Amino acid sequence: MEWKPDKHGELPVYQQIAKRLEQQIIEGELPPGSSLPAERVLARRYGVNRGTVSAAYEELRAMGLLQSWQGSGTWVSQHLWGVKQMPNWYKYTNGGAFLPAYPLAKRIQEACFDPSIINLAKAELTTSMIPPLSLQNLDDANENSFELGYAHPKGDVKLREVLATHLHEHYGITASPEEILVTSGAQQALHLISLCLLSPGDAIAMEGPSYSYSLPLFSSAGLRLYRLPMDKEGIIPEAIKSLHLEHRLRMVFANPTYHNPTCCVMSYARRRQLLDICQELRIPLVEDDAYGALTIKNGQKPPLPIKAMDASGTVLYVNSTSKTVAPGLRIGWLVGPRSVIERLADAKQQMDFGTSSVSQQLARHFLESARWKNQMERLSGYLYSQRQVMQAAMEKEMKEYATWSIPEGSYHFWCRLVEPMDEQILIDAAIREGVVFTPGSVYGAEQGWLRLTYSWEKGTAIEEGIRRLGKVLGNKTS
Amino acid sequence: MEWKPDKHGELPVYQQIAKRLEQQIIEGELPPGSSLPAERVLARRYGVNRGTVSAAYEELRAMGLLQSWQGSGTWVSQHLWGVKQMPNWYKYTNGGAFLPAYPLAKRIQEACFDPSIINLAKAELTTSMIPPLSLQNLDDANENSFELGYAHPKGDVKLREVLATHLHEHYGITASPEEILVTSGAQQALHLISLCLLSPGDAIAMEGPSYSYSLPLFSSAGLRLYRLPMDKEGIIPEAIKSLHLEHRLRMVFANPTYHNPTCCVMSYARRRQLLDICQELRIPLVEDDAYGALTIKNGQKPPLPIKAMDASGTVLYVNSTSKTVAPGLRIGWLVGPRSVIERLADAKQQMDFGTSSVSQQLARHFLESARWKNQMERLSGYLYSQRQVMQAAMEKEMKEYATWSIPEGSYHFWCRLVEPMDEQILIDAAIREGVVFTPGSVYGAEQGWLRLTYSWEKGTAIEEGIRRLGKVLGNKTS
Repeated sequence: MEWKPDKHGELPVYQQIAKRLEQQIIEGELPPGSSLPAERVLARRYGVNRGTVSAAYEELRAMGLLQSWQGSGTWVSQHLWGVKQMPNWYKYTNGGAFLPAYPLAKRIQEACFDPSIINLAKAELTTSMIPPLSLQNLDDANENSFELGYAHPKGDVKLREVLATHLHEHYGITASPEEILVTSGAQQALHLISLCLLSPGDAIAMEGPSYSYSLPLFSSAGLRLYRLPMDKEGIIPEAIKSLHLEHRLRMVFANPTYHNPTCCVMSYARRRQLLDICQELRIPLVEDDAYGALTIKNGQKPPLPIKAMDASGTVLYVNSTSKTVAPGLRIGWLVGPRSVIERLADAKQQMDFGTSSVSQQLARHFLESARWKNQMERLSGYLYSQRQVMQAAMEKEMKEYATWSIPEGSYHFWCRLVEPMDEQILIDAAIREGVVFTPGSVYGAEQGWLRLTYSWEKGTAIEEGIRRLGKVLGNKTS
Repeated sequence: MEWKPDKHGELPVYQQIAKRLEQQIIEGELPPGSSLPAERVLARRYGVNRGTVSAAYEELRAMGLLQSWQGSGTWVSQHLWGVKQMPNWYKYTNGGAFLPAYPLAKRIQEACFDPSIINLAKAELTTSMIPPLSLQNLDDANENSFELGYAHPKGDVKLREVLATHLHEHYGITASPEEILVTSGAQQALHLISLCLLSPGDAIAMEGPSYSYSLPLFSSAGLRLYRLPMDKEGIIPEAIKSLHLEHRLRMVFANPTYHNPTCCVMSYARRRQLLDICQELRIPLVEDDAYGALTIKNGQKPPLPIKAMDASGTVLYVNSTSKTVAPGLRIGWLVGPRSVIERLADAKQQMDFGTSSVSQQLARHFLESARWKNQMERLSGYLYSQRQVMQAAMEKEMKEYATWSIPEGSYHFWCRLVEPMDEQILIDAAIREGVVFTPGSVYGAEQGWLRLTYSWEKGTAIEEGIRRLGKVLGNKTS
């Protein structure tokens, strides 16, 4: 969040401002010779009197850090005598091949760390739904302490064996441990794919909207992104053919089950068709299945993942424990042809020398026992009641302003505003009112969509959050 | 390791070979139209009779996968009827912005997974020197289970507080928790720096030889690498000036304490001089201190890190628990100006969504107690006796073939061969003899240097390993 002086702080406000500017000068964010905002501009930005800024500038002039010339403004002195000069870090932090997060996404992320704000943006299980994890109370008494050496570059072999069984039993996917790479969540799997299998300039296609639009990682890798049209059954696969003709697609990314953010589920026939087209064109298909197991109580079970019907090795399948067990574990996996897994394992080894072996052992012990199944049943009921609470609150508070359909799985309502409005204004107003959500543009949707998440806040907070949001929408649309 | 048929396997050898080739064809490693090795060439590679390869090729011709033409060899059929076609993964795994590991480094890494080979390459603590880690038996009874949500993008705030104290107490470094980023080992810190603060084409300087030469991550980021000359006191800092004039250095990487691979320690005066030059030229200095705490019993304590004398914010300091406590934790940290830490935290968030919170908690509990200090004392004695064993064995077995100096800290002897020899031949012979080490070229050294590590194998295995190595050197140099 943008820095502001603390009016109740120990230091007088003008000194806080002077200190802040001094730091920016020393760190090179304000390089020698750069001009400072006019006093009234900075005063407005910080919500203080112009005189306060004046006093701060005066302080810095006295230190030799600033220079002013009547009528021509204020600059950072060209020669900073006595100031320890550090490298011009500003130049470094604003260069680099890796793009910073989009400002709107960042603003929301920051609001998520403020506990006074009701959080309908955070796609994370609430603490009480995260099961306790330990190596204690295991049948296998030999294994009650962690192995702490480096694991195999593909991931701990015992975890990969457990994953092979888990994938077969719960997802209908046949894969040997050699065809599985353990990653730091699904996120890292996507990062590895974009960095190691694709090259700058490559064209890729993905759902529009998509969670992936919130990730600058594809743009950072220099990829050209094209969106695939969707209807209620998900991606319309025929569109791939024409996109491919025009742009020579190098990869397709899809999230067929409880698609983030729309929560839509791709039908069996569509999955089949998508796979056939990718296979025919020999375009790799990346299937993100992070929410796939989260069917809400009484919801219809979704079809098996596309990977389960992939006999040709076209699909790279990505999943994790983050949405089902515990995000803090940072355990995900990628399933694909052995040659691909080996290449990515090699790159991962260079990037971070493998995934925490402690996390890998905890994940293994959870996934190999009955606990995973129990956890899924528990989650299914939890998500049901959470969804019901949000739905009732929305009916009460937001019906005039938005429409939505009811998700059968996962964490979110995807709402369409009756009257689209500027998202920057909307999110600012919501945060002021004490509630945060995710505007659709973060996912590349057109203006007027919101994603509201019911996995994090508990019953009454959800009601209060929706009430606040309704109030904001009411003020703005009226 | 390269695939070989298993002569005692269930399938006849020719069928194993046929199956292997079939898989390579299906996975696109051998694309349609590509030519296969002549039968006698493949026979030699696999250590089988030519007739066996003949039979395998015949099998694949029968399946329609191969075509032969008298006198012109054998190719993969242009049209693979009946074969499920996957994407041409070969094209994908050989493209991408991220370079694969160097073949020699990879060969050694693979040999390290063979338990029959005595390992003098693995720079890892032997299992018995890794302390048991748990949250049990802590004074703070409220904290005996893991927090499993996502941690703060910079890392768990409590861990960063503990690190701030730890850095101050043991390394003389003053940093607030806001100036610390928790990473997945030191490796990830280097990766983040190279990807986010530098751009392709940027010139960087580092020690020659350097551990960093073993990392394709700098080349992957498109950086131009220049080496700084060294003597017994480490980098000769004056060289930075001329390199900078010629190439406009964007960053300097240094490993001043127990430098990997030479184990040399930069003197206090040299550190001062290096920092002054970087500060004067406003070039950021990355200080890798991963081995810094590992002074061997009776060894002279090294000077404090350069970061401890850095009042200007020129140094990015990198360290981890991998060499001191447990590599499998994958916990490292980067200390630098707040603006840099924030930029890198943002990028890390996009890459892997943060470091395992389980690992972070275990690291915190270890570092905040007296256990870290006890561990360092224990290690200091362990490294002493290990070094003595290796030294005695070397005196006995290798004296005619190599020279070395005695390290005062860390894990390695850096040996110079009296007569340089081809490293590929040497490492192959050593692996055949059942011992593996790291040839200097992996670190960018000239031919004729070896790094021998005494942290992993125990006493008698070190003796036997050095005996085997002596034998290999004796055969080759005689």
